[in-house]
Amino acid sequence: MQRYFIDENSLQNDIVTITGDDAHHIATVMRMKPDQEIICTIPGASTVRCALTNISSETVEATVVEYVENTNELPISITIASGLPKGDKLELIIQKGTELGASAFLPFQAARSIVKLDEKKGAKKVERWQKIAKEAAEQSYRHIVPTVFAPFSINQLLNAIPDYDECIVAYEESAKSGESAQLVQTFQSLKEGSKLLVVFGPEGGLSEKEVEQLTEKGAKLCGLGPRILRTETAPFYVLAAASYHFELMR
Amino acid sequence: MQRYFIDENSLQNDIVTITGDDAHHIATVMRMKPDQEIICTIPGASTVRCALTNISSETVEATVVEYVENTNELPISITIASGLPKGDKLELIIQKGTELGASAFLPFQAARSIVKLDEKKGAKKVERWQKIAKEAAEQSYRHIVPTVFAPFSINQLLNAIPDYDECIVAYEESAKSGESAQLVQTFQSLKEGSKLLVVFGPEGGLSEKEVEQLTEKGAKLCGLGPRILRTETAPFYVLAAASYHFELMR
Repeated sequence: MQRYFIDENSLQNDIVTITGDDAHHIATVMRMKPDQEIICTIPGASTVRCALTNISSETVEATVVEYVENTNELPISITIASGLPKGDKLELIIQKGTELGASAFLPFQAARSIVKLDEKKGAKKVERWQKIAKEAAEQSYRHIVPTVFAPFSINQLLNAIPDYDECIVAYEESAKSGESAQLVQTFQSLKEGSKLLVVFGPEGGLSEKEVEQLTEKGAKLCGLGPRILRTETAPFYVLAAASYHFELMR
Repeated sequence: MQRYFIDENSLQNDIVTITGDDAHHIATVMRMKPDQEIICTIPGASTVRCALTNISSETVEATVVEYVENTNELPISITIASGLPKGDKLELIIQKGTELGASAFLPFQAARSIVKLDEKKGAKKVERWQKIAKEAAEQSYRHIVPTVFAPFSINQLLNAIPDYDECIVAYEESAKSGESAQLVQTFQSLKEGSKLLVVFGPEGGLSEKEVEQLTEKGAKLCGLGPRILRTETAPFYVLAAASYHFELMR
């Protein structure tokens, strides 16, 4: 069943009203007919299954058939902080990371990031990234759309650490030295509803200074198994491991 | 340190001889100089750290400095069977799946695969997929290059199931119905050295008949958490969960 995110004002007295791109999608792309059903989610609040009543490419109306329970979110909230990588790698991180349950994406300008975004370019990118997150969230039955932050400086990232219950840094040197217990320990220490920040370097890795600054702020260095993962693959590992730990093993 | 795969004849009396593309890479792309060190791996056998002695773009020679222990392979061997997906998704599965530790990739012509490969096209594709696996294996410090099979028919896949200790099928309906224990149970039942086959449908999923045929042969249906993963994302989940289970939690 097609799924759409709506804002809270779009659901009134068990009637859902959809406008804009999503109305166009339902009427023109999907060519849906009255009585066909869709799922609508108010991010972080209700999800309803509803039957279409009026359809035009400007406005679509639907009547609620059922309120659906929200059980698709990871029990802990994970923010993926990525040192700005090259090309369209962050798009892949956001698309797949959303499917795998990330709560937020926080790109940051790392010392070894080759890409530099000025404010104007940055704003355009963030808009595109948000769109990717929204589409992936709909497709993967998420109940929230992950937040994509505008790129942080390293200092902004360091200052954000106290907002989270734990912060870990995926560190290639930890992987090489066989460190294997930190991720398990961190997951074991977190309760439902906890907020975890996970920091990944860009292609060239984090600089020694960045690692020092992060650990001074309480971040823990963490290996992700013995194989060296690319900057865009490592977040998938952490998110899948979190799902395995918190959703499948309990 | 740069890593290269070599065949067993390339290591004789502690001297490594490298020819072909890799010699070109060392001499011309990396512009390495005598005394610089590289890592060479005979897949499934030894790994050596060695110092370059003679360098030309046709032949490179190096002297062994140290035999390195092989500890980078997942304790169980996982074969990823993917219903042929559209576009270049299988390339992504092979690249990232190799980083994450897969032993082999087995594409198969599923009922809902939109792509059809004839023998000639198929052979070209397999060559390209093998190259991607080799490069990803070098980059992620693997000790083997995963095998990429030429596409199987569904019957060939069914007949291959008895060659594995366990076979699981990532099944969207299991995810929707909240099935969450099968993957954990399967991992718990496997010993070091076991062979696991994991089957993934193409974009449209497996057909009911395929699911029936697979379960008749002993395959178990398996959910991968409550979110719906795309066909190219689901293998990353299984491989990361396997690493978490077998490498980090032990």
